[in-house]
Amino acid sequence: MKTETLRARLLEVQLDLVNHRERSVIVLLTGHAVTHKGRLVNELNHWLENRHTEVHALGPSSEERERPYWWRFWRRIPDRGRIGIFIHGWYGDALFARAERRLSPGAFRDRLAEIRAFEAELAAEGVVLLKLWMDIGRHEQRRHLEALQQDPVRAWQLSDTDWQRHLQHAAIGALGSEMREATAADHAPWRRLDFRDRPAQLRRVGALLHETLVAPPAPPRAMPEAVPDEALAAPSIRHADPRVPAPMKKASYAARLVDAQGRLAINAREVARRRIPVVLAFEGLDAAGKGGGIHRVTEALDARQYRVHRIAAPSDEELALPWAWRFWRRLPADGRIAIFDRSWYGRVLVERVEGLAPEAAWRRAFAEIREFERQLLAHGAVLGKLFLAISQEEQLRRFEARAATPHKRHKLTDEDWRNRERWGDYATAIDEMFARTQAPGAEWALIACDDKRQARLAVLEEVNRRLELRLASPP
Amino acid sequence: MKTETLRARLLEVQLDLVNHRERSVIVLLTGHAVTHKGRLVNELNHWLENRHTEVHALGPSSEERERPYWWRFWRRIPDRGRIGIFIHGWYGDALFARAERRLSPGAFRDRLAEIRAFEAELAAEGVVLLKLWMDIGRHEQRRHLEALQQDPVRAWQLSDTDWQRHLQHAAIGALGSEMREATAADHAPWRRLDFRDRPAQLRRVGALLHETLVAPPAPPRAMPEAVPDEALAAPSIRHADPRVPAPMKKASYAARLVDAQGRLAINAREVARRRIPVVLAFEGLDAAGKGGGIHRVTEALDARQYRVHRIAAPSDEELALPWAWRFWRRLPADGRIAIFDRSWYGRVLVERVEGLAPEAAWRRAFAEIREFERQLLAHGAVLGKLFLAISQEEQLRRFEARAATPHKRHKLTDEDWRNRERWGDYATAIDEMFARTQAPGAEWALIACDDKRQARLAVLEEVNRRLELRLASPP
Repeated sequence: MKTETLRARLLEVQLDLVNHRERSVIVLLTGHAVTHKGRLVNELNHWLENRHTEVHALGPSSEERERPYWWRFWRRIPDRGRIGIFIHGWYGDALFARAERRLSPGAFRDRLAEIRAFEAELAAEGVVLLKLWMDIGRHEQRRHLEALQQDPVRAWQLSDTDWQRHLQHAAIGALGSEMREATAADHAPWRRLDFRDRPAQLRRVGALLHETLVAPPAPPRAMPEAVPDEALAAPSIRHADPRVPAPMKKASYAARLVDAQGRLAINAREVARRRIPVVLAFEGLDAAGKGGGIHRVTEALDARQYRVHRIAAPSDEELALPWAWRFWRRLPADGRIAIFDRSWYGRVLVERVEGLAPEAAWRRAFAEIREFERQLLAHGAVLGKLFLAISQEEQLRRFEARAATPHKRHKLTDEDWRNRERWGDYATAIDEMFARTQAPGAEWALIACDDKRQARLAVLEEVNRRLELRLASPP
Repeated sequence: MKTETLRARLLEVQLDLVNHRERSVIVLLTGHAVTHKGRLVNELNHWLENRHTEVHALGPSSEERERPYWWRFWRRIPDRGRIGIFIHGWYGDALFARAERRLSPGAFRDRLAEIRAFEAELAAEGVVLLKLWMDIGRHEQRRHLEALQQDPVRAWQLSDTDWQRHLQHAAIGALGSEMREATAADHAPWRRLDFRDRPAQLRRVGALLHETLVAPPAPPRAMPEAVPDEALAAPSIRHADPRVPAPMKKASYAARLVDAQGRLAINAREVARRRIPVVLAFEGLDAAGKGGGIHRVTEALDARQYRVHRIAAPSDEELALPWAWRFWRRLPADGRIAIFDRSWYGRVLVERVEGLAPEAAWRRAFAEIREFERQLLAHGAVLGKLFLAISQEEQLRRFEARAATPHKRHKLTDEDWRNRERWGDYATAIDEMFARTQAPGAEWALIACDDKRQARLAVLEEVNRRLELRLASPP
């Protein structure tokens, strides 16, 4: 194919991409130093319609450092219809940190596993990935470095890092192989570009990108399904009994509430001081009292420290990105508390039961959620997952009370009655969710809510327990 | 009104706010130190449904410091339906910097003028403002500071800053008066809260907020209309002649293009080195060649340095915020280049001519735009505003050529033909835009585009000129 023809065809498929807004594309370049990555990116970007491309090659900002590692990449995922070009992307850190021995072999392999999970999730959500490894021989790299150093016009492009990476040429080469092998997939293939073929590189990349875009989407390599951990007992809503033998007396409740909120205030202040981020996910049956529970928690907190995120239907900007993006964007900075009023579990609850997500999507969500929560914990966050349950009798009583009280009527919708009829389906979904997403540090608390007072104290107790567990561990 | 009744009514109007999603609310507290601002905010926040509130009391992040001053506030404006509570907000910096003499009296007054403009713009866009000045006598402040210092449980709340502000009590009081007088408006009233009335403060704030929310929206005090600056010659599309006596030869074009792009590459690198942000706004008649012009600019740039923002219909997240938000969110960090393919001028062009914005909205936009651009320049940005014009004959030729060329047909829409019929209306809008938004450092370049080659060179020439003007000035 002539270069001009290739270029025209590439533009054509890009326009298709823009017009359909179904998929987005990530082209990622990494590899050896002084391989003219920047120049290649520039050339490729000129071939494309650059109103629909974006190039990322950034060090982390203070906002990024204060959030789980992957936040910095999630926030840069291109919208459907757009092409994002990443220099080093999520490979550079791992590769160079390992080459410089700032990362242990085990930590390096863990990072590769994270990368696999991240890319599998992107691919499943319609992100097309093309990864390029920029290769150069050691002698050639040295010749090239020396030439650059002597070129008065371009010597400024060189840094000490380039020389350091030259000295580590063998290590980077070996680590690169290991990395590519561990992260190659049909949905995220690696291509090697040799520096000696430089004049033909742009054509090669253009052809690869064209080929990637016209090929039918590769079936994403399914993440291994999240298997329930037999050693971890998960709660079960079918076997739980949210009824209470005796309701709690008001006076006794008031005293215990003050006590629990006082403890929470102290814990929260310590969490702020030690810059520990806290993520609380509230799920529950309709009318179980999520709002009331959250309110008792926030009453004890400084309003500057927390934010409540009510998760409802996604905005159009959220729909243009993988589903998990809207939870990533709301993660708290270190020392802050994000309270989710409904959460990322919507995918395996309402979206599953109401058929809003295809089965493949909610099935893989279990593994995606486990990985998401693991990353929060790895960043040092406290994670609380609370499920508020009530018995069917109590729910009916509350619905009827709502219907009868003018200023509460807006809280009751047709949907609530519909959900109630699907009790069995919800119970199945809830119990599978418990079993498949129960993990160390990410355990579910199933809270019996038939008695509001006991429920609210139990919510506070669970939040305090989580915070104290973390605060008791060394900083 | 009993406290419980007030509380219930406040919740009721908040629910109205949430359900209508027409207005948002900002409650801002500032004033003297040790007036229990934090506690009051907490109490108020508990009175409200805090799934729809957010509290802001933050120092600037590195991302914020790298952008024009007002970016940090624009990004925190609450969505329609929500209430944002700001501690100090945009008043603290000015007040304390002036008290500590880090800000000159003139700079302080300038900041107050910026605040007036900012609040008028918010109010006109449906943001309800309530500003609270927290007062305390000097002796009482001292007593309170000493008591706090001796209280083992709360002494940690005190900082050196509190003592420093105590020493500046008189200055802060006087500056506060000046500040309130300069920024009070029906749409953004100040209320004074005296520390001695503390027990009643929450009730007072609740009542004020309730009153503010049930009152009919105050007509925003119109910003003085942006008057054309007679001393600055503005271009005129009615008097321009975009035709060319002789088209430019290809060989001569090629040489000059290489030259201009080479200069641009050098200028852009220097801009990055000196961390100067660059904002380029491209406007123009249909088929005048905006895309081609932008492309010739980006060809000379490192793809890591710039981003092209194509401004089309707003997203639903953008519609939930004042119209200028979608330009603020796209401003470049220091050293980077944002290229707007259509821009904030849409409001006084297409939105005006097609009746998409009411007359009051596009009329005030002239002043809002001037203020926006002034703030960019005050941050040290380079601003380029390019308007690409073609003659009606040439436009017709290009439309017909597009219609006849299969792979260009998608570029021609019914809207293009409709716009063409409204030539006179557009010319009026364009000339008024030129006259009212011509300002020092923010001058328009009207570029004759009947000959594509000359047009592209003129675009490059204008961008280079802008950058070189800035680079020639001392850092």
